[in-house]
Amino acid sequence: MGSFQSERTVNGWAARDATGILSPYSYTVRKTGPQDVVVRVIYCGICHTDLHQIKNDLGMSNYPMVPGHEVTGEVEEVGSEVERFKVGDKVGVGCIVGSCGECGCCKGNIEQYCNKKVWSYNDVYADGKPTQGGFASTMVVNQKFVMPIPPGLALEQAAPLLCAGVTVYSPLKHNGLTEKGLKGGILGLGGVGHMGVQIAKAMGHHVTVISSSDKKREEAVQHLGADAYVVSTNAEQMQGAAESLDYILDTVPAVHPLEPYLSLLKVGGKLIVMGVIPAPLQFVTPVLMLGRKSIVGTFIGSIEETEEMLKFCAEKGLSSMIEIVKMDYVNTAMERLEKNDVRYRFVVNVASSKLD
Amino acid sequence: MGSFQSERTVNGWAARDATGILSPYSYTVRKTGPQDVVVRVIYCGICHTDLHQIKNDLGMSNYPMVPGHEVTGEVEEVGSEVERFKVGDKVGVGCIVGSCGECGCCKGNIEQYCNKKVWSYNDVYADGKPTQGGFASTMVVNQKFVMPIPPGLALEQAAPLLCAGVTVYSPLKHNGLTEKGLKGGILGLGGVGHMGVQIAKAMGHHVTVISSSDKKREEAVQHLGADAYVVSTNAEQMQGAAESLDYILDTVPAVHPLEPYLSLLKVGGKLIVMGVIPAPLQFVTPVLMLGRKSIVGTFIGSIEETEEMLKFCAEKGLSSMIEIVKMDYVNTAMERLEKNDVRYRFVVNVASSKLD
Repeated sequence: MGSFQSERTVNGWAARDATGILSPYSYTVRKTGPQDVVVRVIYCGICHTDLHQIKNDLGMSNYPMVPGHEVTGEVEEVGSEVERFKVGDKVGVGCIVGSCGECGCCKGNIEQYCNKKVWSYNDVYADGKPTQGGFASTMVVNQKFVMPIPPGLALEQAAPLLCAGVTVYSPLKHNGLTEKGLKGGILGLGGVGHMGVQIAKAMGHHVTVISSSDKKREEAVQHLGADAYVVSTNAEQMQGAAESLDYILDTVPAVHPLEPYLSLLKVGGKLIVMGVIPAPLQFVTPVLMLGRKSIVGTFIGSIEETEEMLKFCAEKGLSSMIEIVKMDYVNTAMERLEKNDVRYRFVVNVASSKLD
Repeated sequence: MGSFQSERTVNGWAARDATGILSPYSYTVRKTGPQDVVVRVIYCGICHTDLHQIKNDLGMSNYPMVPGHEVTGEVEEVGSEVERFKVGDKVGVGCIVGSCGECGCCKGNIEQYCNKKVWSYNDVYADGKPTQGGFASTMVVNQKFVMPIPPGLALEQAAPLLCAGVTVYSPLKHNGLTEKGLKGGILGLGGVGHMGVQIAKAMGHHVTVISSSDKKREEAVQHLGADAYVVSTNAEQMQGAAESLDYILDTVPAVHPLEPYLSLLKVGGKLIVMGVIPAPLQFVTPVLMLGRKSIVGTFIGSIEETEEMLKFCAEKGLSSMIEIVKMDYVNTAMERLEKNDVRYRFVVNVASSKLD
């Protein structure tokens, strides 16, 4: 067990304003507290929310901002009271690095719904310092919010699971949608959607990808293993799939009509929304009422669920389809992500990037 | 067991066009089939949907139309294969008088979600005849869609339970919201809402009525037994009730914002919508996501649930607050209902009205 006696300087890449352009940035992180784990970052995935945050799309951004919340790496040091981890362990950090510990959500192990949760970046930690994410050499994180990466799961593969993976796993688990033979729909085949296809398939579901064009059919069916593919603008295909699905994972991060998708659900079916969309979505009540359907919100998953999901993915041999880049490519990667020009997740190899 | 050898003429009150004005109307009903029960109508409640239907608000009305789907009465004759009922039994008929009997919904005893269900009026029965409702001397109904009224429940009290009562009972049951101690909200204190307060209270819930003004406070708390009353236009009261409710029964039959009410729900809370609203409702996804909340549709209840609910109300001694009128007052009653000028349900004493 090592010991940092004082704050130390780390190098990361930060956005400085709402242009969202990232560039090298040096800052200090707190000295290692008794419960803290110092993580040497090796990989960090890029999520669509990072794009929203660096460009201040949600109106809540503070700069300089080091994004990144799909972090994997190695334990470099642990605090005096840390028992869950030791130096050299392979670990992950997701969207959240703190919560109150006392509310019903925290006590019920769904700390992602704690009103005082602390985001991995663009937030303020208990010590008053801004939190900074995984596009950096090092993160110091309370052990409660650090997760072991199970043997057999490569760190670059594990990175997107920490947000995209648990975002689809948690609502399936929570809504009782894990048994074999269910029929699921995946709306939108981006980073989260492609993970949805794989996790739903690994659960033994019949999976239909719903997309606005025919472009991704081959990939969805042949590469990701989807059982069916429906083009949402094709009335005949949509009619053919009417009332056939137990659930839809709606991963679309932009305004879209809900009725066409609600009509694909069986009686009692659930449309599970997981995209932060700044403008309102609409529905007419009879579409929900006349099939006892529901629109269900979900938000990432708990630490407990994330650990469970990592094990599930390791056991099932699941792998995300990723494009590994270095930090000097990150601005181009962001531009491409904005145009959905990535299959399906960028992961930054932070450890082998020049950060300063 | 009597026997009608042929169709017979009955007298009811019908709307003739979208003015919705009701007037006497004579028509024939089918001769009693082997599975049919002939019901002499005694009472019939007036539901807000009746108002939508007689005025063609939903664009699906056919005239002449005899409305009424909260019907109680006495068995006058039964078909040769009817075993559930005998002449003289007190019975009820609700919104539905037929379904396919073969689909998953019918086999699962949730025939209210069958795509081929037959509405009690403004629909076409298997014999090709239009269905006509309970504002009439007689209905001929397949025994499957006739329910016994338990001893101790007065027929005029039972009438509103057949639609308004089961509309609130069914979603509480289906969504696992029947245990004691839950905190429920009732949005809108009309016919359905007032029943919601009483049924939720009878389940042992803490009930908050949410209304747009202070007008109904005394009634809600003192007459109906609500535990709390929140005025939705009072920011302080709404803030005070934030994140406090396990569910809200949203009974409002007109366009309204959802965010203010979603914010009253605890993590995992459900906003249950039961009002047929022709225009879209809106919500922003973070409000659902950041508390794993859901918007849940529900539509009346099954025959099985209705029978269960009638027994529940009889056991608990529940009574609806009704204003009993005769048929010659029905047009005035409709006008008053449109202005929400009724506490809380009109029930027509059909048996003692002059119908021709």
